[in-house]
Amino acid sequence: MKELKSINDLTEAFKKFPSIGNKTAERMAYSILDMDKNTINQIIKSIENATSKIHPCPHCGLLTEEDLCFACKDKERDTSTCVVLAYPKDVNLFESMYYRGVYHVLNGEISSYHGITPSDLRIKELLDRINNEGIKEIIIATNPNIEGDTTALYIAKLLENTNVKVSRIGFGLPVGGNLEYTDALTIKKSFENRTNFKKGD
Amino acid sequence: MKELKSINDLTEAFKKFPSIGNKTAERMAYSILDMDKNTINQIIKSIENATSKIHPCPHCGLLTEEDLCFACKDKERDTSTCVVLAYPKDVNLFESMYYRGVYHVLNGEISSYHGITPSDLRIKELLDRINNEGIKEIIIATNPNIEGDTTALYIAKLLENTNVKVSRIGFGLPVGGNLEYTDALTIKKSFENRTNFKKGD
Repeated sequence: MKELKSINDLTEAFKKFPSIGNKTAERMAYSILDMDKNTINQIIKSIENATSKIHPCPHCGLLTEEDLCFACKDKERDTSTCVVLAYPKDVNLFESMYYRGVYHVLNGEISSYHGITPSDLRIKELLDRINNEGIKEIIIATNPNIEGDTTALYIAKLLENTNVKVSRIGFGLPVGGNLEYTDALTIKKSFENRTNFKKGD
Repeated sequence: MKELKSINDLTEAFKKFPSIGNKTAERMAYSILDMDKNTINQIIKSIENATSKIHPCPHCGLLTEEDLCFACKDKERDTSTCVVLAYPKDVNLFESMYYRGVYHVLNGEISSYHGITPSDLRIKELLDRINNEGIKEIIIATNPNIEGDTTALYIAKLLENTNVKVSRIGFGLPVGGNLEYTDALTIKKSFENRTNFKKGD
């Protein structure tokens, strides 16, 4: 209904979310009218909570609601193995396959198209951790596309003359894909079949 | 990340919307973290506005933010032709094909499965309007499924011995489908090819 400004506004608002197109956004907007007050308040409260409570772990860059993230707080984890992620949410895939090492989040991938250079990423922090925390192996889990490849190569190059083992998850991931859309089984295969990624290893 | 309660809560909240599954809800929840404060406030404000400002038109049952809906307020419209809708949002399809008559919303369809009987619908209000407002033709635009068929037949039966022309949109709609997923062209075809639906016409 053209003149329903608040429905139009809400449809536009929902379209700001990824993978929500016009039809879905409109259907979502109308569905609000059928929800009870409690449900609506709960949705609003959840949005407010998520934006106010969550921040990056100052140590590894994963998201957390506390001073340190679950992985950095867990003393049982193997701190000699570190999975390097482009984005914090990719951690869920590794947790779902019971990975017991630690993580480091780069907060992006090198991209000439988007103007993202190595200095925009948390690469220096990664090198600091490798130097100071006894990390013996890093497993680069950037996306299987050009940005992810570039980032992995860049990091491997930096670590070329060190003793750190550098591998990259690889086999099992569909080429040109996106980690976010990957299931737990595929990521497990790709983890097991990780390939060495450093000259001479 | 398992321990991110506010992301889990938000994911659950988004799953309350129609056609939003687990993956999409999670992606939406995480995307909140990348949005600026303004965008988030605008989303929350839109939800609040939609729920507080919108109510059914007391005359025809379409949704409105004012005392009467756009169709009932528009003096140029042909009040002798009335499209009968199951749900208010279906009106958009008819507006998009420049229909110039009026509307009546039933607020549902007869369904033995869901326990919805004719008395749950705004059928009495429709008969009152037919008696008092010079409606000469009604075009029943209920969904092309068993509930929509039953509702259309029920109304046609009620009007059997009157002079009101009763038709139902039909050809062009995929059987077993849902009006909500129909494009403007299909609805236009189905409108043009509407079939008489009253004995003896």
